[in-house]
Amino acid sequence: MTTSADILVENGRVLTMDARSRTIPRGAVAIRGDCIAGVGRAEEFVAWKAAKRIDARGGIIMPGLVNTHTHAAMTCFRGLADDLPLMTWLNEHIFPAEAMLDERKVYCGALLACAEMIMSGTTTFCDMYLFEEAVARAARRAGMRAVVGEVLFDFPSPSYGLLEQGFAATETLIRTFRDDPRITIAVEPHSPYLCAPGLLTRAFELAGRHGIPMVIHLSETASEVTTIRSRYGRTPVAHLAALGALAPNVLACHGVALTDDDIGLLKRHDVKVSHNPESNMKLASGIAPVPQLLAAGVCVGLGTDGAASNNNLDLFLEMDMAAKLHKVATLDPTVLDAETVLRMATIEGARALGLAARVGSIEPGKKADLILIDTRKPHLTPMYNAASQLVYAARGSDVATVIVDGRVLMEDRRLLTFDVEQAMDEVVGIGAEMHARLTARSSKGQ
Amino acid sequence: MTTSADILVENGRVLTMDARSRTIPRGAVAIRGDCIAGVGRAEEFVAWKAAKRIDARGGIIMPGLVNTHTHAAMTCFRGLADDLPLMTWLNEHIFPAEAMLDERKVYCGALLACAEMIMSGTTTFCDMYLFEEAVARAARRAGMRAVVGEVLFDFPSPSYGLLEQGFAATETLIRTFRDDPRITIAVEPHSPYLCAPGLLTRAFELAGRHGIPMVIHLSETASEVTTIRSRYGRTPVAHLAALGALAPNVLACHGVALTDDDIGLLKRHDVKVSHNPESNMKLASGIAPVPQLLAAGVCVGLGTDGAASNNNLDLFLEMDMAAKLHKVATLDPTVLDAETVLRMATIEGARALGLAARVGSIEPGKKADLILIDTRKPHLTPMYNAASQLVYAARGSDVATVIVDGRVLMEDRRLLTFDVEQAMDEVVGIGAEMHARLTARSSKGQ
Repeated sequence: MTTSADILVENGRVLTMDARSRTIPRGAVAIRGDCIAGVGRAEEFVAWKAAKRIDARGGIIMPGLVNTHTHAAMTCFRGLADDLPLMTWLNEHIFPAEAMLDERKVYCGALLACAEMIMSGTTTFCDMYLFEEAVARAARRAGMRAVVGEVLFDFPSPSYGLLEQGFAATETLIRTFRDDPRITIAVEPHSPYLCAPGLLTRAFELAGRHGIPMVIHLSETASEVTTIRSRYGRTPVAHLAALGALAPNVLACHGVALTDDDIGLLKRHDVKVSHNPESNMKLASGIAPVPQLLAAGVCVGLGTDGAASNNNLDLFLEMDMAAKLHKVATLDPTVLDAETVLRMATIEGARALGLAARVGSIEPGKKADLILIDTRKPHLTPMYNAASQLVYAARGSDVATVIVDGRVLMEDRRLLTFDVEQAMDEVVGIGAEMHARLTARSSKGQ
Repeated sequence: MTTSADILVENGRVLTMDARSRTIPRGAVAIRGDCIAGVGRAEEFVAWKAAKRIDARGGIIMPGLVNTHTHAAMTCFRGLADDLPLMTWLNEHIFPAEAMLDERKVYCGALLACAEMIMSGTTTFCDMYLFEEAVARAARRAGMRAVVGEVLFDFPSPSYGLLEQGFAATETLIRTFRDDPRITIAVEPHSPYLCAPGLLTRAFELAGRHGIPMVIHLSETASEVTTIRSRYGRTPVAHLAALGALAPNVLACHGVALTDDDIGLLKRHDVKVSHNPESNMKLASGIAPVPQLLAAGVCVGLGTDGAASNNNLDLFLEMDMAAKLHKVATLDPTVLDAETVLRMATIEGARALGLAARVGSIEPGKKADLILIDTRKPHLTPMYNAASQLVYAARGSDVATVIVDGRVLMEDRRLLTFDVEQAMDEVVGIGAEMHARLTARSSKGQ
C-alpha cells in the first residue's frame, strides 16, 4: 500500500458523493499528482507521509461543485439592468452592451467569474459565449476545469463574423485544446430559435465526430416553444429529435417548457439537462419540471446562467433555491431533498458534462478536485446533517479551500493563482466604459 | 450646526431608504449617542470632529435589516429534520425536541441566532417562542433591537404551564421591559387554529391597552384555512375581523393562503404582513400573494422564520428569494423589483413592527441602526446599481460592520458584544444532547 502523498487533507467529514453517497465522519483524502490516491478514515492515514498537510478543522471535505451552464464574461454586465421585461432587457441593454465586447473584455470578465466561482466552491464550469478562446485562457490562468465553446447562430457574430468562420473557430479550439488536462471544447449552437436546422445538424455531427459535448439552450420559455412549433410544427426537443440531433453528449440548458413527450425523448436519447432555477425565476421564464425529469431517470445538473440574469455565480445559493423552489411548486416538502440537490451540483453535474469518470466525486483514481467547507460558524451550528447544512444554510463564502487537479487554487479564502484585486480593477474599468457608452448612446436616442 | 459626533461613518454610498429612497454616492453618517446626527455628502462632514471614524472603504452604508418573524432559539434544531411531510416533521421531530427545551437552551439558541443575524446584517428581529424572557436577555446581551413575546395557545406550555400563567408572564414581560431602549414586548397568540376565540380577543385587548404589537401566524397554509372555515365558517382573516381583532398593531405572519376579501380586510384595518418566502417554500406551504398585497397598499416586511424551516437567518438570501419567487410565480420579471424588496427588508419591516419612527431608514433623529457592506469582492463587481447588487448578488457574509443604537456590535466581521465561540460551543452541546435523547426515544419506539 502506498504511504506517501503530495497533499493530505485531514480532520474533516468526507462527503464522497460516490454511488453509495458514502460519508466518512472523521476522514481524510490523500492526493498524489493531479489524482486522488486515497480516501478513508483518519486512522488509515496516520502512517502516510505528505509534502503538504491541509487541516479541514472538523469541517466538510467534498467534491468541487460543477456549474453546468454559465456565460462567465457576463460578470461585466452584473446589475447593469434588472427587473425588466425580457425583450426590453435584451434589446435595450444586453445586446447593445454585448456589441461593445472584445477579446480583452471577455477575458477580464471570465477571469473575474473564475474568482467568484472558485471563492464559492465551483471547480468546473461549462461556458457558452463569444470569444471563447479568451474564456479558456482565463480558466487556464485561474486553474479551473472548464468546458468551453464558441456560441454559434445564424447571424454574424461580433467575435468570428460569419457562421462558416464560427465552425472554423470551433475546429481550431478543438485542435488547440485537444491535450489540455482541464479544458474540454464543446460545440455550442445557441438554440433552435437562433439556429437553422442545417446549423444544428452540422454542429451535432461535429460534436459526435470528436466525441465532445454539444451544448444548447433548449425550451427555456413557453414563447420559444410557440416559435419553434409555428416554424417546424414540433416542440424544440421534438425538433432536435426529428433532426437526429439528440444523443448522450447533448446538454440541454434550461429545459423549462417541456412536455411529457419531450421528457420521454430526453430520457430515450440520454440527453443531459442543466437546471438554472435562479435565472429562470429572475427572468420569469418558468419552472423546469425537475422532479419529473429525475423520476424519468434523466441526468440533471445545476447551473447559474450568466451574472446578468442571476446575479451571482454561487452554486450554494443555486442549490438552496432549487431545493426550495420545487417543494413549493409541487406543494410537496419531500421533493428534491438535500442529498439529491447536492448530487446535482457535483456528480450529476459532472455526468451532464461527460466528465463523471474524472470528477464529481471523491474516489481513488479520480482527479483531485475538492473543496473544504469551514463549518465553525454560527449559521452552520449545530451539525445534525451535512447535506441539509450545505444546501439550506451554507453560502459560497463558507468555502475555505479549493483544490483542482491536485493544485491548491484557494487556501483559507486567499486566491493563489492570480491577482484578484487586479481582476476586479479591470472589470470596474470595463463597467465604467460600458456605462459611459451606453449612457451616451441612449441620450442620443439611438 | 453641530460639528461633533461620537462616530462618523465615512467614504461610502449611503442608501437612506427614506421616503424618497435617497442615495448619496459619496456620503457619510454622523452618530451622536444612540441617534443619527447627520447624513449627507462627504464634504459636508469634513469639518466634523469625531471620537471614532469608521471607513466604509467605498462600500454601502444602509439601515440595518429588520427580520419581522423568527423563532430565534430554533437554531438548536437547524438541520435536525428536513425534507419531510409537515405533520411528520412536526410530530416526530420538532415537537419532541421542543419538549426538551428549557430556559437555558432557549437563551443559548437565541444568542447563537443573534450572532448569525448580526453577522448577516440584521439589527432588529421579531421573535415568537417559549421562554421569551430568555430571548430578551440574549438580545440585550448581543445588543440587538428586538420585539419579543411569549407564544400563547390553548394547551399547556412547556414554559409557563396553563394559559392564565401565559398572560401573567406576558404582563410581567411588559412591566419588566417597559423602559428598555431596545426591547419591545408583544402579545403573541400562536394562530387561530391553536387559539380559541376568547384567547384571541383577550390577547388583542391586552396589546391594544399597552399600545404594543400583537403578532400571530395567520393563513400560513391552505389546510389552516380549511380548518378555520370548518370551525368558524370564515377564513382566518375574516375570523379575526369578526372577533374585532384586526388593527394597525397586528402583525400577520406568513399570509400565504389569502383571498381577495382577506387582502381587503388587511388593508382596511392596516394590518401588517410578515412575508417568509424561504420557510413557505421549504415547508411547501405555498406562495403568499405579495404583489397583490403591495398593490392593495398593505405593509409587507420580510422574515426568515426559524432556522428549522429555512435553515438560515440571512435576510440577504431572503431578499433574493422573495424577488425571484414572485417573478416566476407571476411570470412577470418586473414584479418586486430590487428597490421594493430592499424597502421590505428595512423601512417596511420597521413599519410592520411599529418601529418606523425609530429605525428602518437613515435619517437625522432616528436611532443609529446601520450596517456597512464591503463591496470590494468579485461577486459584487462591477457596481452599476446598489439595490440590484444587494438583493441579487450580496450575501450576509458581505456585511462588514453593524451598529445598533450607536453601539458597534460587529466591526470588520468581529463580533464585539459576546463570545461567539462560546455561543457556538453551547449549542453544539445542546445539539449533541438533543440528538442522543431523540435517538434513545425513537429506538424505544416512543
